[in-house]
Amino acid sequence: MILTVTLNTALDVTYRVPALRPHSAHRVTQVTERPGGRGLDVARVLAALGHEATVTGFAGGATGRVVRERLTGVTDALVPISGSTRRTIAVVDARTGDTTRLDEPGPLVTPAEWSAFLQAYEELLARADAVALCGSLPPGVPVGAYAGLVRLARAAGVPVLLDTGGEPLRRAVAARPDLIAPNGDELAELTGSHEPLRATQDARRRGARSVVASLGAQGLVAATPEGHWRAVPPTRPRGDLTGAGGFITAGLLSGLADRLSWPETLSRAVALSAATVLPPATGEFDPAAYEDLLGRVAVTGEVNAA
Amino acid sequence: MILTVTLNTALDVTYRVPALRPHSAHRVTQVTERPGGRGLDVARVLAALGHEATVTGFAGGATGRVVRERLTGVTDALVPISGSTRRTIAVVDARTGDTTRLDEPGPLVTPAEWSAFLQAYEELLARADAVALCGSLPPGVPVGAYAGLVRLARAAGVPVLLDTGGEPLRRAVAARPDLIAPNGDELAELTGSHEPLRATQDARRRGARSVVASLGAQGLVAATPEGHWRAVPPTRPRGDLTGAGGFITAGLLSGLADRLSWPETLSRAVALSAATVLPPATGEFDPAAYEDLLGRVAVTGEVNAA
Repeated sequence: MILTVTLNTALDVTYRVPALRPHSAHRVTQVTERPGGRGLDVARVLAALGHEATVTGFAGGATGRVVRERLTGVTDALVPISGSTRRTIAVVDARTGDTTRLDEPGPLVTPAEWSAFLQAYEELLARADAVALCGSLPPGVPVGAYAGLVRLARAAGVPVLLDTGGEPLRRAVAARPDLIAPNGDELAELTGSHEPLRATQDARRRGARSVVASLGAQGLVAATPEGHWRAVPPTRPRGDLTGAGGFITAGLLSGLADRLSWPETLSRAVALSAATVLPPATGEFDPAAYEDLLGRVAVTGEVNAA
Repeated sequence: MILTVTLNTALDVTYRVPALRPHSAHRVTQVTERPGGRGLDVARVLAALGHEATVTGFAGGATGRVVRERLTGVTDALVPISGSTRRTIAVVDARTGDTTRLDEPGPLVTPAEWSAFLQAYEELLARADAVALCGSLPPGVPVGAYAGLVRLARAAGVPVLLDTGGEPLRRAVAARPDLIAPNGDELAELTGSHEPLRATQDARRRGARSVVASLGAQGLVAATPEGHWRAVPPTRPRGDLTGAGGFITAGLLSGLADRLSWPETLSRAVALSAATVLPPATGEFDPAAYEDLLGRVAVTGEVNAA
């Protein structure tokens, strides 16, 4: 079983409007809702790839109920809280296709709820082949939370992937996660360097065993104990891939769980992100496009001397 | 008991953002939620004025559950439906104070649900002193719905106030409601005239027994079988009163139920709308300001010869 942790789950709501005009009233022509938060997205992709996926984190209130009712294909091990799970609203302008996002901050998690989560997490780790820690932290959860979760995973002997940014990433990287998967901005913020090769190596020195940075259309850059690689999609992505990060994390996690080589794992992540059904907010990929792309990802790099 | 009908109830969600910029991502800094839809707003004001208020209409899905949980001070006689009650999102730009609205269309009401509502409505009318039919119609409800509800109220001998616009108003006015309360735009759309005195008289010829049109800062214009009046607030309203219509309707309904004279009823409606706590979306009025304003509304007009 692969475990994904989403402390700040969400109900992702998408509104289609004819044209967004600030300071006026709009009739929404189409409403779609799906469970969201990075780890839930990742678990959904893992399930589509044939993995057994379990999701944990927090869910509460009316929005939390909807999130749980709509979780299909994955095992629900979310921990109940008294606060209400946040919504994110994506307003799509039908005229331009542009999206405007409104993200609620998330519920306040109490110390007792955080303790209940830690107990559930340790129990789930005992059955996990790999774990991914994903996304932002809700109010009330200590900023060093991911560092503690990384240590617990390492103590349980479960490979741990960290997919977050900012201060939570900075704190957790020192706890020596097996893999971090930042995007270019998150990596630059962590290391102070905008040069991907140098930055991935720097992130390893800070504690991450392996680093895979996603650079949009330029693909992935990986720095690992086994070597370093770059993996590039065969065709330019068809549009704005903001939000496609969940596919890359799912691909990496899937390769980790299947004990693939790094070049195979990177190919899987790149092919998945390139096979995303646009907009990525739909959380779906095209299986035929994925299979086709898988053999055509260009991976170049170097294996370290043993 | 005063009955208000809200066929398209809503959960009104207000988001405060530092500054709204289309096609970018926003962290919402404050989220507030309250039951909405015009008839629910009216009932809340009636309850604050000391009336016994009952709300009916439709509620369904996760959003409907939240609406029902948060209905306080009024009797809940909403009819359950399989579809989900709509949300409305008001995005307040903290920098400018401007509001951008996103209104979901509302659930599809089935013919069986509409029949169940009609039965509940007739039973409620038997105990009602007055009824208000408020707001838009959700998908699936026939556009002539309000005409039928007006006829049922008249058959039951219950005074009926109609507070809607567009085609639903046009259809229902011919069924001879006791009172319609359009705003200036709705009245102009109904009659083709932008001259309030002429337009209110024309609306009476179309079937409404009495017409009270709200003209924003210019107050109210009333055309009734007993005479015609204009009621003007003593001070300029403190801001944008879009959304204050619920207060005017509540004032009129309250006067109708208490069998006040027209000048007294109009004073009550004007004082309430002028005592609105801004923004009106909060659905609250300042009782002290209301009492103070009540004696200072200027009502001018003429009683018809008996």
